[in-house]
Amino acid sequence: MKKKITTMILSLSLLSVGSFFAGQALAADAKENSQTITRDGYQTSSKGSAEFFTGNVRIDSLFSENDSAPYTGGYVTFQPSARSAWHTHPAGQRLIVTEGVGWVQEWGGPIEKIREGDVVWCPPGVKHWHGATPTTSMTHIALTGMLEGNNVEWLEKVSDEQYDTKTEKSKK
Amino acid sequence: MKKKITTMILSLSLLSVGSFFAGQALAADAKENSQTITRDGYQTSSKGSAEFFTGNVRIDSLFSENDSAPYTGGYVTFQPSARSAWHTHPAGQRLIVTEGVGWVQEWGGPIEKIREGDVVWCPPGVKHWHGATPTTSMTHIALTGMLEGNNVEWLEKVSDEQYDTKTEKSKK
Repeated sequence: MKKKITTMILSLSLLSVGSFFAGQALAADAKENSQTITRDGYQTSSKGSAEFFTGNVRIDSLFSENDSAPYTGGYVTFQPSARSAWHTHPAGQRLIVTEGVGWVQEWGGPIEKIREGDVVWCPPGVKHWHGATPTTSMTHIALTGMLEGNNVEWLEKVSDEQYDTKTEKSKK
Repeated sequence: MKKKITTMILSLSLLSVGSFFAGQALAADAKENSQTITRDGYQTSSKGSAEFFTGNVRIDSLFSENDSAPYTGGYVTFQPSARSAWHTHPAGQRLIVTEGVGWVQEWGGPIEKIREGDVVWCPPGVKHWHGATPTTSMTHIALTGMLEGNNVEWLEKVSDEQYDTKTEKSKK
């Protein structure tokens, strides 16, 4: 059964909105329509929920959506063998791989290897998962579009049978 | 005098759109509404135009805008003393500092130091510049919203008098 829910990441974003604006309000130079700087370490790291991820996943939120830029941003780090569940994004998602080597797969397609510097575009509604390989960790920035307050629809977990080196596409 | 123009970065984006889609068309698995992967090194680096930048600036484009995600993305690397001209963004801009230490300044405000992990949000229409410090390089990812085919309005250069350690805000 599909679970149409606000994501772990979105929940974190909403939580962080509180502290984010609190931080802005505290800043000496806070004013309307002014540039803002969120300092490294301001937002705490969090663990990817076992409901939506397999294995050890760390989420480091960078920013929440706003009216002018309606997408969330954050680093996601997958330890070897860790991966997201299958899911879709109502307004699409861009992934920028910043470290390591991982896997990404679209429903019905082969597992594709992604490396530092690769960029993935997942269109709205396309079912996919992303994560580490069985032997290497991977970190990406995820930029995820918001549509009517939601940025993901979580589906079933990626089974061990699906997460299999035999289905990895050979690199051209 | 203001110059309302399509940016160097946008021009590069438009140029890269051609090669980007050519790349997709060549891909064996290219199909409508399918996930796409742009490989590291696929897009060539370019030098920031002397018209809009001071000093040595390298632009590594990551992706162009599309209908679902109307913002461009790219790494920008400023060598020591290098900086953008003053400019505004019609749909705002997010900067994610990924390496080094740099400066960012909003018109009328102090020069603020930004370090790896810091995130800057510049709202639509806010006049700012960003770059390296006189002694350190800085790389950020720039995520720049598009509005009616434009993502920047370039203004005057940041003079040597404006680019001055004396106007740097002391770090709290």
